[in-house]
Amino acid sequence: MELTHIEHLGIAVPSLEEAIPYWEGVMGLTCYAIEEVADQKVRTAFFKLGDTKIELLEPMSEDSTIAKFLETKGQGIHHIAFACKDIEAQLADAENRGIKLIDKQPRKGAEGMTIAFLHPKSTQGILTELCTK
Amino acid sequence: MELTHIEHLGIAVPSLEEAIPYWEGVMGLTCYAIEEVADQKVRTAFFKLGDTKIELLEPMSEDSTIAKFLETKGQGIHHIAFACKDIEAQLADAENRGIKLIDKQPRKGAEGMTIAFLHPKSTQGILTELCTK
Repeated sequence: MELTHIEHLGIAVPSLEEAIPYWEGVMGLTCYAIEEVADQKVRTAFFKLGDTKIELLEPMSEDSTIAKFLETKGQGIHHIAFACKDIEAQLADAENRGIKLIDKQPRKGAEGMTIAFLHPKSTQGILTELCTK
Repeated sequence: MELTHIEHLGIAVPSLEEAIPYWEGVMGLTCYAIEEVADQKVRTAFFKLGDTKIELLEPMSEDSTIAKFLETKGQGIHHIAFACKDIEAQLADAENRGIKLIDKQPRKGAEGMTIAFLHPKSTQGILTELCTK
C-alpha cells in the first residue's frame, strides 16, 4: 500500500462529555468538531495535533461496535486510520497481499472522508482504517 | 500540557522478524532502525510515516512489561507517545492537573530521546509517553 500519514487515532470512550475535558484541559488540545455518524451508531469528537487527529468515539446505542469494545476491552485506543490517495487501489493491493477487508468497497465516514476498514485478524491485531478526502 | 505532534505509536509484537514483513510488505513502510532498549528489556523497530513513527516492541525477556502486555492483551497498540519541547514543564503541568506519573523524572529512551510515561489509570486508559529530543 501507499500511505501518506496517520490521519487519526480512534479512541473509544463511554462519554464525550467526560472525555473532552481531559483532552482539552490536560492534553491542551482543542475539540474543533462533534459529529454523529449514524450508520456506525457513534458520536465523535475531533482534535488536531500535528498532521494527525484524535477521534473520540462514544456509542449511541448498546449494539454499537464501540459499546461492545468498551464492554470487553474498556476505554482506550480502538483503531488507527491511515491516509492514502487512491483508496480503491490500496484496498485492492491489501486484498492481493492476503488482508481481509471489512469493507470491500469504500464508504462515507466522519468529516466527509471516504473510508474502509481492514480486519484486525489480518493486520497484526490492530483494527486498521484507510481513508481519503 | 503543550504538545507538538504524535511522535510515535508503540505496538507490542511477539517477534520483530514476523512483524517487520507486514509493515514493509503490506503497509509499504521502511524499517529504518532496530535498537535494543536494555532497561525496558525490549527490541524496537522503527518506521516513519508523516510526522509520526511506528515503534514495534518485542520483549527480550519474560519479565518485560511487553511480555506481560502480550500475555494479557495480545499483540496490538501499547502506547501513544506525544512530542513536546520542555518535558520537565509538561510533567509538572500534568502532575498539577492530577495525572499520575510513572516516571517522576525524565529518562533516556530509544533513539536518544528523553522520555517519561504517564499512568493509564489517569490518562483515559491510554498508556501515554511524553518525549523530546
